[in-house]
Amino acid sequence: MPPEGLLFGRNPLAAELYRSVADLSLVCPHGHVDPWLLADPEATLGDPAEALVSGDHYVFRMLHSRGTPLEQLGVRPAASSSTAPDPRTVWQCFAEGFPLFAGTPTGLWLALELSNVFGIESPLNGSTAQQVYDELAEKLNRPEYSPRALFDRFRIEVLCTTDSILDELAAHEALQATGWAGRVRPTLRADPIMRADDGDWAANVERLAALSDTDVRDYGSLVNALSARLAAFKRLGATGIDVSVTIPRAEFLPVAEADSIVHRGLRGLASPEDGARLAARLVLQFAELSRDEGLVMQLHAGSLRNHHAAGFDRFGPDIGADIPVRTEWTRNLEELLNAYGEDPGFTLVAYTLDESTLTRELAPLAGYYPALVLGAPWWFLDSPAGIRRFLDAAASICGLANTAGFVDDTRAFPSIPARHEVWRRVCCDWLAELVASGQLDEEAAHRLARALAVDFSLDSFRLR
Amino acid sequence: MPPEGLLFGRNPLAAELYRSVADLSLVCPHGHVDPWLLADPEATLGDPAEALVSGDHYVFRMLHSRGTPLEQLGVRPAASSSTAPDPRTVWQCFAEGFPLFAGTPTGLWLALELSNVFGIESPLNGSTAQQVYDELAEKLNRPEYSPRALFDRFRIEVLCTTDSILDELAAHEALQATGWAGRVRPTLRADPIMRADDGDWAANVERLAALSDTDVRDYGSLVNALSARLAAFKRLGATGIDVSVTIPRAEFLPVAEADSIVHRGLRGLASPEDGARLAARLVLQFAELSRDEGLVMQLHAGSLRNHHAAGFDRFGPDIGADIPVRTEWTRNLEELLNAYGEDPGFTLVAYTLDESTLTRELAPLAGYYPALVLGAPWWFLDSPAGIRRFLDAAASICGLANTAGFVDDTRAFPSIPARHEVWRRVCCDWLAELVASGQLDEEAAHRLARALAVDFSLDSFRLR
Amino acid sequence: MPPEGLLFGRNPLAAELYRSVADLSLVCPHGHVDPWLLADPEATLGDPAEALVSGDHYVFRMLHSRGTPLEQLGVRPAASSSTAPDPRTVWQCFAEGFPLFAGTPTGLWLALELSNVFGIESPLNGSTAQQVYDELAEKLNRPEYSPRALFDRFRIEVLCTTDSILDELAAHEALQATGWAGRVRPTLRADPIMRADDGDWAANVERLAALSDTDVRDYGSLVNALSARLAAFKRLGATGIDVSVTIPRAEFLPVAEADSIVHRGLRGLASPEDGARLAARLVLQFAELSRDEGLVMQLHAGSLRNHHAAGFDRFGPDIGADIPVRTEWTRNLEELLNAYGEDPGFTLVAYTLDESTLTRELAPLAGYYPALVLGAPWWFLDSPAGIRRFLDAAASICGLANTAGFVDDTRAFPSIPARHEVWRRVCCDWLAELVASGQLDEEAAHRLARALAVDFSLDSFRLR
Repeated sequence: MPPEGLLFGRNPLAAELYRSVADLSLVCPHGHVDPWLLADPEATLGDPAEALVSGDHYVFRMLHSRGTPLEQLGVRPAASSSTAPDPRTVWQCFAEGFPLFAGTPTGLWLALELSNVFGIESPLNGSTAQQVYDELAEKLNRPEYSPRALFDRFRIEVLCTTDSILDELAAHEALQATGWAGRVRPTLRADPIMRADDGDWAANVERLAALSDTDVRDYGSLVNALSARLAAFKRLGATGIDVSVTIPRAEFLPVAEADSIVHRGLRGLASPEDGARLAARLVLQFAELSRDEGLVMQLHAGSLRNHHAAGFDRFGPDIGADIPVRTEWTRNLEELLNAYGEDPGFTLVAYTLDESTLTRELAPLAGYYPALVLGAPWWFLDSPAGIRRFLDAAASICGLANTAGFVDDTRAFPSIPARHEVWRRVCCDWLAELVASGQLDEEAAHRLARALAVDFSLDSFRLR
Repeated sequence: MPPEGLLFGRNPLAAELYRSVADLSLVCPHGHVDPWLLADPEATLGDPAEALVSGDHYVFRMLHSRGTPLEQLGVRPAASSSTAPDPRTVWQCFAEGFPLFAGTPTGLWLALELSNVFGIESPLNGSTAQQVYDELAEKLNRPEYSPRALFDRFRIEVLCTTDSILDELAAHEALQATGWAGRVRPTLRADPIMRADDGDWAANVERLAALSDTDVRDYGSLVNALSARLAAFKRLGATGIDVSVTIPRAEFLPVAEADSIVHRGLRGLASPEDGARLAARLVLQFAELSRDEGLVMQLHAGSLRNHHAAGFDRFGPDIGADIPVRTEWTRNLEELLNAYGEDPGFTLVAYTLDESTLTRELAPLAGYYPALVLGAPWWFLDSPAGIRRFLDAAASICGLANTAGFVDDTRAFPSIPARHEVWRRVCCDWLAELVASGQLDEEAAHRLARALAVDFSLDSFRLR
Repeated sequence: MPPEGLLFGRNPLAAELYRSVADLSLVCPHGHVDPWLLADPEATLGDPAEALVSGDHYVFRMLHSRGTPLEQLGVRPAASSSTAPDPRTVWQCFAEGFPLFAGTPTGLWLALELSNVFGIESPLNGSTAQQVYDELAEKLNRPEYSPRALFDRFRIEVLCTTDSILDELAAHEALQATGWAGRVRPTLRADPIMRADDGDWAANVERLAALSDTDVRDYGSLVNALSARLAAFKRLGATGIDVSVTIPRAEFLPVAEADSIVHRGLRGLASPEDGARLAARLVLQFAELSRDEGLVMQLHAGSLRNHHAAGFDRFGPDIGADIPVRTEWTRNLEELLNAYGEDPGFTLVAYTLDESTLTRELAPLAGYYPALVLGAPWWFLDSPAGIRRFLDAAASICGLANTAGFVDDTRAFPSIPARHEVWRRVCCDWLAELVASGQLDEEAAHRLARALAVDFSLDSFRLR
């Protein structure tokens, strides 16, 4: 279905560059694939609705935005005895709404996925829906469509999952135990212990304490527990951690104050102000801890989680209702970069959802501080147009070598190759335009095409 | 004067798409045309200076910015006995300044208007000024250049005006009474009662009370009066209301506090803080009221009105000195969208002047909440380049189906076809590029060209 | 090395437009060239490392961002007895890092500079480094590579330097005394006296007082001293002043409060709040003073200086660690534009590092107020892509005639022609695209090409 020249302008060099990187293996340093899909040799992707619709908020949020309730799309209520809808009904609804995805990156990925991963040749619409469902369902049951088989077919060189700091990592232990050759790495995600004013913070810290065999009673012992978790993740192959905050503030705090906030948090008495201050201290702390452990620190900032309270109450998080907010980086990262920005042992990959900060803050910062590199265009910015704007900003201001390459950031495992393909194609076309206008020579274009496809991420995420 | 391929790149599909939508009727869901132009069968557009210069702040602000005082451009002082300048002198000044519009959307509209609406073939400049004036003046007196004749010639399917909530709607009643076939609809604009700290708020509320036969003495009775006005507008054909605020905050307020603010406002004692809090409550209230009445709610935010105090004192509002400010939507609309964002009876069309919010806030919100659609690129963002950035953002993030199509937003009646033509041409060229790069098939492009031209606005504004 | 069609798309008109402006003289209204380079007939550009690397923070910040310490790049510690590195070692390091500049504007300028100014034909890399060094070193010693000879060869029509308000202007006096024909003008830069809360403010004001023969003891006498300095700069040919602030706030302040802040500042007791309030008063004051003296006021806002404290302590300012922050113009300039925005004797050239303000604030303001013009895309925004975004915003919203043309803003003297060439080429290509899409006729394109190259800056900066 997708033509040869997909995403290319009129410059033949684009295709030439792409041919040289199209078959390179896929490096996946950040994403949300469930590790059990790969840890369990018997795992499957489920039925077509589960594999392509109900588990991917990129997909179901669009259908919801035009009026389909999430229940009808197979999104599972958090605590409910309601019966799940028939997957064929979900699929029919998806197929009828498929035209909504025209011109969206999700539409592009879905088209590539159906065609290249599943070999579906019919166009998807209301009348072909059930026939396509049958074909998909049949294939999803075959061994060659198992996650492990697809992992190999996709030529994934390494895939990093995102795992709660409170996760026991049983999946990753199982993965290692099976002796399967695929490289899958955990990534510590710190969310559950970031906000002392969250209702479940005390319980989460208790769990953290248990997992790390540490008695957490003040800031110092909290840090010891965090450190123990970083070490545990590293033992299972982690090369990085991931911190996600709405506001990327990093700030020192006198120990006595940090202790007080921990005390209040443990008793469920921390205020929002307490929560914000401890979170800022923890961002800084994670920089130090990751530097000490030789782990890369990712920082995702600017998303206001769970904007739709009724949706959250009903379905929990990750329903497509996380919405970006204005983000400040220059002042917020000042202490962190002053402390660790020149440290050769430290790498910070920063992702923004606020595009205005790319030319204003992040690229200028990355063009000075050795430790800081720009994370790939994230989430709402992952379209061909968004990628071009990202490349324009990064190349102009800090140079492409200060970017961390691509991350697919997906929980939809079969969409991985499509996402890499779109990135690689857009990068190659963008590079070809630079050559055409005399801003780059062909040799550099070939080098950068390869670097954007694999090298920058292998290096930034220490995955060599 | 304008070539066949105006606004097209090198892709022949652009022209093909445009041919299929060029002759579709014009849907005008939002603008500032004076309804008396159409209500009064004898109305004319006046002399050339009045028709094209003195009444259009897009035009005279440019001339002012290069040093021509507004008086010399025929802008009428609010309260003054000074004699208006000779329209020929105004026109001469405009013609000499015409090169300033090179490359601006206003310049493009003016060129199309002169050529396509008025059949002027000479280029406009200082030496042709008087000859063009003569030709225009002669035509403007002819019956076929009357507003009603032009309305038909422009193939306007429906035109919505913007009318103060305090307007008696005599023009719209007259329109209905004449039995003329043109569809013209009022839109309630709430400005005069939004800010309890404005000097004339108490007088405005008194007028509101009189118009709605309601004794306004507290928040509840204020809402009753508003509701009565919505109903009155609806009886005259309105399908929507329009709320314009600098900050798009929507927030509940305990009734007792709302009452207190109303009390203080009625005595002229409301503080700016009072004004802001009541305005936020009213934004939320208008969502509820418009949902209840089955009206679409438009929300225009981010313009700081009357930036130039001396200009305002001398000439009143709408002199081109309204300047955008940074705007926040994600948090400001949180309560409103949580309350009504999934309500199938509610539609909110949001317009922003802060482009950084498109990819960061509005498109992500519109891609989740069924009730929210993106208003057309507004005011300073209505250029071909601005439209392309809007389409890039909307298509990538929420899909084009979550946009409300085009609004011409003009008070310059004869500029309407030019504005629609520019929009349609840019959309077609943009769609053709997507097809060329394999992101869209031709069938979808044809469908979307038509939807962007008419369907999205007919649907979003309930004008079918 | 750079091809004929450098920076052009596929439109042959671009080359035609460029041919018509390529040989026009260079107008340099704002930059940071050391005036002694031209005042001293014996001055040279130094060795290759000094001429191209160690003195240009655009260059060394990139190498630093990938891990090379500034010392190794020849950046001089502020107060240190450490020996400078061998320039050949610095050059080797630069040459090896040269691929980092691929796709950056700095890379483009460097390539043009090496090729067009110095006639270097070898590509620069680790193995050619020393040979290129030899060739450059030999040429830099020749009389035809002296700054004055290059000034003539570059066809610089006028070059304005940026000089501290506390500078005695000995270089400019020497320049005038030598009778050399090159037009070099000083520009008063107010930084040292802007912030009463800076540790050296009292000493700076004392120096100001001495230079202006004024006893500064309150706000009024401070203004007298400033006024005297403006007059002194004007006597040496200045046509403008330059105010640089993080936040472009301009605000009246009662004299008694201004006096109090001056008193506290002179005793070293001013608070940050004091500093901010006096700075806002001074921005407004400089508008009045420059209007009174017939000088153009430049306003550079939005850079947070010296983000990296350790770097600042070691090397002082201007090491590439000034990082932009979010900037607000609409409200901050409200008082200033209300006071002087329609004054025919006043010109304000405003530069922003916050691109989101271009379409939102600055272009809308410049499209209304006669006094305000848009400064060229500044610093991190000076790339081909950044220039295109600037032209899109300016042309769409306020028209190109409300821009101040180009400033090269460089302290790297030999990079001047390359910077102008890139600007002119991008402008011509951008204009050619407008012609191709029917938005501009060829005559207007030729006029605007010339205006963007020289006329707008000659006029805005009063350099005719």
